[in-house]
Amino acid sequence: MSNQSEPKHPLKMFALNSNRPLAEKIAAAAGVPLGKATIKHFSDGEIAITVDESIRGDDVFLIQSVSDPVNTMLMELLIMVDAVRRASAHSITVVIPYYGYSRADRKARSREPITAKLIASLLEDDGVDRVVTLDLHAAQLQGFFDIPMDHLEATPLLAGYFVDHDLTDNLVVVSPDHAGVSKARRMADLLHAPLAIIDNRDPNKSTTSADAVIGSVAGKNAILVDDIIDTAVRISISAQTLKNAGANDIYAVATHPVFSQNAVEQMKASPLKKVIVTDSIQLPSEKQFDKVEVISVGHLMGSAIRQIYTEQSVGKLFVKEELDNTQA
Amino acid sequence: MSNQSEPKHPLKMFALNSNRPLAEKIAAAAGVPLGKATIKHFSDGEIAITVDESIRGDDVFLIQSVSDPVNTMLMELLIMVDAVRRASAHSITVVIPYYGYSRADRKARSREPITAKLIASLLEDDGVDRVVTLDLHAAQLQGFFDIPMDHLEATPLLAGYFVDHDLTDNLVVVSPDHAGVSKARRMADLLHAPLAIIDNRDPNKSTTSADAVIGSVAGKNAILVDDIIDTAVRISISAQTLKNAGANDIYAVATHPVFSQNAVEQMKASPLKKVIVTDSIQLPSEKQFDKVEVISVGHLMGSAIRQIYTEQSVGKLFVKEELDNTQA
Amino acid sequence: MSNQSEPKHPLKMFALNSNRPLAEKIAAAAGVPLGKATIKHFSDGEIAITVDESIRGDDVFLIQSVSDPVNTMLMELLIMVDAVRRASAHSITVVIPYYGYSRADRKARSREPITAKLIASLLEDDGVDRVVTLDLHAAQLQGFFDIPMDHLEATPLLAGYFVDHDLTDNLVVVSPDHAGVSKARRMADLLHAPLAIIDNRDPNKSTTSADAVIGSVAGKNAILVDDIIDTAVRISISAQTLKNAGANDIYAVATHPVFSQNAVEQMKASPLKKVIVTDSIQLPSEKQFDKVEVISVGHLMGSAIRQIYTEQSVGKLFVKEELDNTQA
Amino acid sequence: MSNQSEPKHPLKMFALNSNRPLAEKIAAAAGVPLGKATIKHFSDGEIAITVDESIRGDDVFLIQSVSDPVNTMLMELLIMVDAVRRASAHSITVVIPYYGYSRADRKARSREPITAKLIASLLEDDGVDRVVTLDLHAAQLQGFFDIPMDHLEATPLLAGYFVDHDLTDNLVVVSPDHAGVSKARRMADLLHAPLAIIDNRDPNKSTTSADAVIGSVAGKNAILVDDIIDTAVRISISAQTLKNAGANDIYAVATHPVFSQNAVEQMKASPLKKVIVTDSIQLPSEKQFDKVEVISVGHLMGSAIRQIYTEQSVGKLFVKEELDNTQA
Amino acid sequence: MSNQSEPKHPLKMFALNSNRPLAEKIAAAAGVPLGKATIKHFSDGEIAITVDESIRGDDVFLIQSVSDPVNTMLMELLIMVDAVRRASAHSITVVIPYYGYSRADRKARSREPITAKLIASLLEDDGVDRVVTLDLHAAQLQGFFDIPMDHLEATPLLAGYFVDHDLTDNLVVVSPDHAGVSKARRMADLLHAPLAIIDNRDPNKSTTSADAVIGSVAGKNAILVDDIIDTAVRISISAQTLKNAGANDIYAVATHPVFSQNAVEQMKASPLKKVIVTDSIQLPSEKQFDKVEVISVGHLMGSAIRQIYTEQSVGKLFVKEELDNTQA
Amino acid sequence: MSNQSEPKHPLKMFALNSNRPLAEKIAAAAGVPLGKATIKHFSDGEIAITVDESIRGDDVFLIQSVSDPVNTMLMELLIMVDAVRRASAHSITVVIPYYGYSRADRKARSREPITAKLIASLLEDDGVDRVVTLDLHAAQLQGFFDIPMDHLEATPLLAGYFVDHDLTDNLVVVSPDHAGVSKARRMADLLHAPLAIIDNRDPNKSTTSADAVIGSVAGKNAILVDDIIDTAVRISISAQTLKNAGANDIYAVATHPVFSQNAVEQMKASPLKKVIVTDSIQLPSEKQFDKVEVISVGHLMGSAIRQIYTEQSVGKLFVKEELDNTQA
Repeated sequence: MSNQSEPKHPLKMFALNSNRPLAEKIAAAAGVPLGKATIKHFSDGEIAITVDESIRGDDVFLIQSVSDPVNTMLMELLIMVDAVRRASAHSITVVIPYYGYSRADRKARSREPITAKLIASLLEDDGVDRVVTLDLHAAQLQGFFDIPMDHLEATPLLAGYFVDHDLTDNLVVVSPDHAGVSKARRMADLLHAPLAIIDNRDPNKSTTSADAVIGSVAGKNAILVDDIIDTAVRISISAQTLKNAGANDIYAVATHPVFSQNAVEQMKASPLKKVIVTDSIQLPSEKQFDKVEVISVGHLMGSAIRQIYTEQSVGKLFVKEELDNTQA
Repeated sequence: MSNQSEPKHPLKMFALNSNRPLAEKIAAAAGVPLGKATIKHFSDGEIAITVDESIRGDDVFLIQSVSDPVNTMLMELLIMVDAVRRASAHSITVVIPYYGYSRADRKARSREPITAKLIASLLEDDGVDRVVTLDLHAAQLQGFFDIPMDHLEATPLLAGYFVDHDLTDNLVVVSPDHAGVSKARRMADLLHAPLAIIDNRDPNKSTTSADAVIGSVAGKNAILVDDIIDTAVRISISAQTLKNAGANDIYAVATHPVFSQNAVEQMKASPLKKVIVTDSIQLPSEKQFDKVEVISVGHLMGSAIRQIYTEQSVGKLFVKEELDNTQA
Repeated sequence: MSNQSEPKHPLKMFALNSNRPLAEKIAAAAGVPLGKATIKHFSDGEIAITVDESIRGDDVFLIQSVSDPVNTMLMELLIMVDAVRRASAHSITVVIPYYGYSRADRKARSREPITAKLIASLLEDDGVDRVVTLDLHAAQLQGFFDIPMDHLEATPLLAGYFVDHDLTDNLVVVSPDHAGVSKARRMADLLHAPLAIIDNRDPNKSTTSADAVIGSVAGKNAILVDDIIDTAVRISISAQTLKNAGANDIYAVATHPVFSQNAVEQMKASPLKKVIVTDSIQLPSEKQFDKVEVISVGHLMGSAIRQIYTEQSVGKLFVKEELDNTQA
Repeated sequence: MSNQSEPKHPLKMFALNSNRPLAEKIAAAAGVPLGKATIKHFSDGEIAITVDESIRGDDVFLIQSVSDPVNTMLMELLIMVDAVRRASAHSITVVIPYYGYSRADRKARSREPITAKLIASLLEDDGVDRVVTLDLHAAQLQGFFDIPMDHLEATPLLAGYFVDHDLTDNLVVVSPDHAGVSKARRMADLLHAPLAIIDNRDPNKSTTSADAVIGSVAGKNAILVDDIIDTAVRISISAQTLKNAGANDIYAVATHPVFSQNAVEQMKASPLKKVIVTDSIQLPSEKQFDKVEVISVGHLMGSAIRQIYTEQSVGKLFVKEELDNTQA
Repeated sequence: MSNQSEPKHPLKMFALNSNRPLAEKIAAAAGVPLGKATIKHFSDGEIAITVDESIRGDDVFLIQSVSDPVNTMLMELLIMVDAVRRASAHSITVVIPYYGYSRADRKARSREPITAKLIASLLEDDGVDRVVTLDLHAAQLQGFFDIPMDHLEATPLLAGYFVDHDLTDNLVVVSPDHAGVSKARRMADLLHAPLAIIDNRDPNKSTTSADAVIGSVAGKNAILVDDIIDTAVRISISAQTLKNAGANDIYAVATHPVFSQNAVEQMKASPLKKVIVTDSIQLPSEKQFDKVEVISVGHLMGSAIRQIYTEQSVGKLFVKEELDNTQA
Repeated sequence: MSNQSEPKHPLKMFALNSNRPLAEKIAAAAGVPLGKATIKHFSDGEIAITVDESIRGDDVFLIQSVSDPVNTMLMELLIMVDAVRRASAHSITVVIPYYGYSRADRKARSREPITAKLIASLLEDDGVDRVVTLDLHAAQLQGFFDIPMDHLEATPLLAGYFVDHDLTDNLVVVSPDHAGVSKARRMADLLHAPLAIIDNRDPNKSTTSADAVIGSVAGKNAILVDDIIDTAVRISISAQTLKNAGANDIYAVATHPVFSQNAVEQMKASPLKKVIVTDSIQLPSEKQFDKVEVISVGHLMGSAIRQIYTEQSVGKLFVKEELDNTQA
């Protein structure tokens, strides 16, 4: 019996509205053109979608970051899935470079929702067959889905920035809080650097006292690691804290540049030397500034899709966390 | 064995952000205060909700119109349902005075979604137990749900305007197109008036020729009936058509005042004398103008909720359509 | 990567008992023979089915109208789907030329079922993957399904009768009531004819007064359009009404000839000149009479199945309604 | 904390059309009147149901045997469940004295359906909360449901006939085939009688040779035990076989008198002295004859419903099979 | 259109820990190697599994008997299915030679579980697409699944033992109790032998009186037939009963050798001459003894898998029960 | 309308076999006796359960830790839920003090299962209505359920040990790895102590070098915090590391004492002064040793159940994590 698998259904890839430049890079890397669909936003706020080419029997990939305006981008995705399912696609894979609401992943207080799970359920109930995503806020979000998920990792690409720019000497990798230590640890492993943590004991006050640093950073170049930079308040305070604790050059690294509110001003005014992010979220020109370096995940995600479509292992592209929580 | 039913679970009612004035009228009519919940919209567009009082074991009613911004208002509702379900409510009833996307109720072309069904599925899968709504675009939307739905009707309230203002003589009720004739017929029945139809043969041209009128309107006062006034293009053209066909006073009646784009200007410039609508959608002050009369559905909906909660029949408040399609 | 799709699973088509002549026409048009299955009706009313050839891994199409005896024909279909699913078919498509219970599509009164939705749910829960049907009573029934549905339209075939017989001059298309105006409008568009409506104000009385006609029919040849002719009471009264209003030749056109009770006698005694229907329901010889013309939908449905099976667009065969309800 | 439970929701009981006399007995035993519902059968075969009294918040019990015409009686039940669910009942219990299609409980050959499971799934998917039934063909059918089922047993009532008529001496209980031995064994236990089996080796021939009897019956009064008497062919041949083997008086006992085809003639012509059955299926007058004795299950089922409604144990009314298959 | 089906997805077969020797025979018969997976049992009792080769897009078959330790073997299977589903297999077939808990197939008393159904539900909910199993305790277990099941039969293999060893003369086939008569009857048909039954009236006492035998066994060689030999108490008592009733050589035949507790001692001490079983359960060396003959089902199951994978009929390999319960 | 809720259904609480002493404490705190159920473990490994008292209409709470033997304890729970559901309980709440497999909460490598989610799905699909649990390995496991979960926290009880024993001076709280920092931080907050982290860079080597400590511990009393102590390898190495780094008294604190393999020997030999755990897992006598202090969670969990049953807020008993990951 043969053990070789050939693609059996035509591949169709569509970009929705959140991040078309990235979608084009993904499509180029996967080696397929983007399909045609009409997405109208009416004056009353409703969205209407028509898929403009036959997808009957096809393996359809939909590319959409759930980024600002998150609710509208999510509805675009849900409506498109409904259209594609009713149009008799063979399978539907949603590619979500930035999974909005990922921080709402548990009840921190009574009577809160778990919106990250809600979104997973909405997508599954809508008929999605598989999810491809990137650097979720918590790896446990994989378990919010029962369908297959390919969870890609941008950390090696981000670490590559420091290698490529000969910045690997005298480094310390710093977690801006106690909850993100695993992410910092992964970066520290890749860069063979020691670890430090900023432990701001009073969550309501914006202290930048050097006492908040656990571990030694004085005289070192510090890389602050986070998955998301949203308002940039924490990352900016953390940079100042490191500066007060005697760090030399200070970098911030994050996969997802949400950059909301005064984030740009905050970072401009901070001691940060560079802010290295990916293009999982499209940065409008007003959010681009000289400190920002954008590393594209287009080739990574396009390669993953090609592997998925030809039914080969995506393993080598996968998140490989240390085994911190296993049986020990 | 006893046949009397007493309310067994405390009633809690919450208003989300789309239409708080109506929610307060509904709550007053139902005889309960609105519960406390915190709804935050973050700078990145995400919504966070906390229910601020215990609802464990309660019958919870959530009031939200899915009106502009429709996607955000829908997500508020879905997230609130998730929070309420996880907080161990006994039952969840969503009260949706205006059901956005209701016109996306079928595939008019290949490869379109049926978004009105999508929303029904999202709500059911989220754990909603019952829906209360008002004047759906098509009665068949009831079948998009498998959970109980109470479908209320505003037509008698709207007809009441003409009775209250002694405007019932020499009337003709007019459907602005061939698809809405049943709605016009229902109003004509209530007002004991004859029926006419505007049949604009060319959907792309905005003709106002008197030829487009089927039935006689000359010398009569005409009431144009629709369920939704959105851009107001059709209703305004229809009014001019009726004027050209010799109608005297021309009124427009609709349950849901979406009033998007230049709707207000369109109606102001039209021969319409009055536009009678309900408060199913909150009209901001810039959408209010002298021709508009708003009839509140607060008492109707509040009474329905009281009936539901005390487990008595809602039948008398119900839509009573003519039996136009039954076995004949 | 290839973009061409080849049929990957053998096609098997089976006819159940409601309309074997049509099934044979569909099979001929699709270019496959009908498969073998044994359907026994026992003396106690139970049905037993055995599929008599292997269908493991096949794309199976089941052809069955849910026509009189509707409950038995529906159960034949549900039982067959169970057998086919358990026999490891790759996919199951049900082809339902006449969808019985389609008029039970909403609650017209309190405490009624929505049987058209019930049937959709029964089929989906039974494991059906796709539905092909024809001229549903309301287009919204598409939304009763979450699986793909191909909704075919017989109106062009029926309109073709008038073109083929040189009967397109001096026509008026008439809706026999206010609820079916959209269907009449679609026929009027195809035949470039004006529209009229019969608006019988008293649903309990069988008046045939010329006053009930909205629009002008005098001196014209009239085509009454409906989707279903059941007892033929309404269509016969409508014909007499048109005759009283001065119409010349009067035709009735409908997709589905249910012809129950005294339908044949009613139509024979009426002023109708011809009754043009399709073979979606098999007409036994006692229901055939000289006024009836039957247009076959076998080629239309067989072509659709071939398109579906080879995964090409069915769009050109689709219902194309006017955009009467969209955002305007 | 209190441990006493009071009925919390009004009880409503409705009879559908299959067996109204039994439903009235059940209602009388449960101490509630039958509710009002209108069930119309239209001339095209469709069924329309309206529940004529409010059931909002009630515990609703629906009584329907799935007996000839089985498909129509099943659809009555499914449609009624849909109506009751949409009318906001608190819970729905279906009471099915005779569960049609129960013999289609496994695939005896390739590519057969398992219709008994199909019906269970249709009922569960329709929203039924609980099932009450009587003497299923195989006890394993309980596992076809995931909702609670109360499986009642008529065997003690049927055995009671022999006790009441002083017929318990010199008895042998006989299974008419090898598959029903457990049912015969249960009766034999209740009557303290020995067991015999008729093992007709050739299923296609109607031999009545005394050789077919395993066990001794000569000179004894024999009771043939089955769950269903359908065409009565097997029971009549078995009676003749017993007669040939020297049995004296021969009785047939069965819970469900389907009596299809020539069943009555078969039994009249056979050596059977009496045929003792229950009223789980309504016997029309033409199926009643002097040998038939009908024992009512009305009180048994009504008592069960009262226990269920007041949330007390039904255990004492339950089937108590011997533990023939447990761990040994 | 082509009617020939080619395997479209690579086949991968994995063995879990319950019965690796049988899995290897199955794999050899199917013509594929067993895939690599790591199954760790940690010291706290938890199981961790990693599939060690890509299975993306493959048709995966998992071989596992749910035999002692049944709960651990079941969890191995459920966890493996979770891993395989998340790893994007195209389909998952579980091959369960011995289906543990199959005797818990109905509620024999109030407030009991139906564990055989629970296991079916756990497997279906976990994403299994198809089940292959062997000689279920009751054929009705097929209906516990809604997914396709191939139910194979070992009886012809077991009967073959007697043919191969020239032991077919002067036989009687005996059911050790009234519940298993159908299994004995099937064997009797294959060996053209008469039938007898042991009817031990007192289930709590271990009588071996010859009176317990229904049918004649004196002077004959007797074959006791059961599906499972668990503690071997019943089979051993039955053998002694037959000996007391004058039987000559006595054999026991069963598909599944559970052999728990003192089963081996029981059978050694009994008058049984031979115990013929299959390798559906792996017999450790301490459970093997000279009376035991093991017939492998490896070729049967491997052939079935090959047929399934190449989408050909498995019918000829199927259980073919007599039609004892059908419409008669 | 009344706003007060009275318990409406009797409360029944049952303990399964994993931890009966804790169950009795919980029952005492909740003020109800434990119900009677028979749980048999047969010699072939199968489990049979009978609930020995009526639970029809009751609110049933089942208490079971999924602890060693985890698979058997899990199956006990799943089978009991099946029995309780089929016995018509009004609601089923499972109380799981120790949620086994909680560390299998994400795919750390390709082709791994997410067993913690699998168990959540098994419980939900089995019909569980609510979960009460304690100190999950990751708070995100809450999102693995869609049903309400009450997630209790033992940290304040554990912190109380140090307060009660006057051990709050000169403390440092230490996380034994980078993944558990949030847990340590919570304890540090409660004890107003600083934080340190052990960052063992080489996961394969058991170094105890003082260099591995981030933060200052010299001269302080150190509390190592973890959720689970399994083999105790990590906690013992960490204690030695702290000793080498100059810490004085060293304590270990953990909610769940799995204590597998040589855990007891490891801890005995380590510099740990005390090991403070809860009774979420029953410690057999051979696992108790003089360093171990067990704090009971019986009162905490019993109080929670009482609040749930009387439908009052459990909020005050809840986990209150810092808001480390919210919008900032």
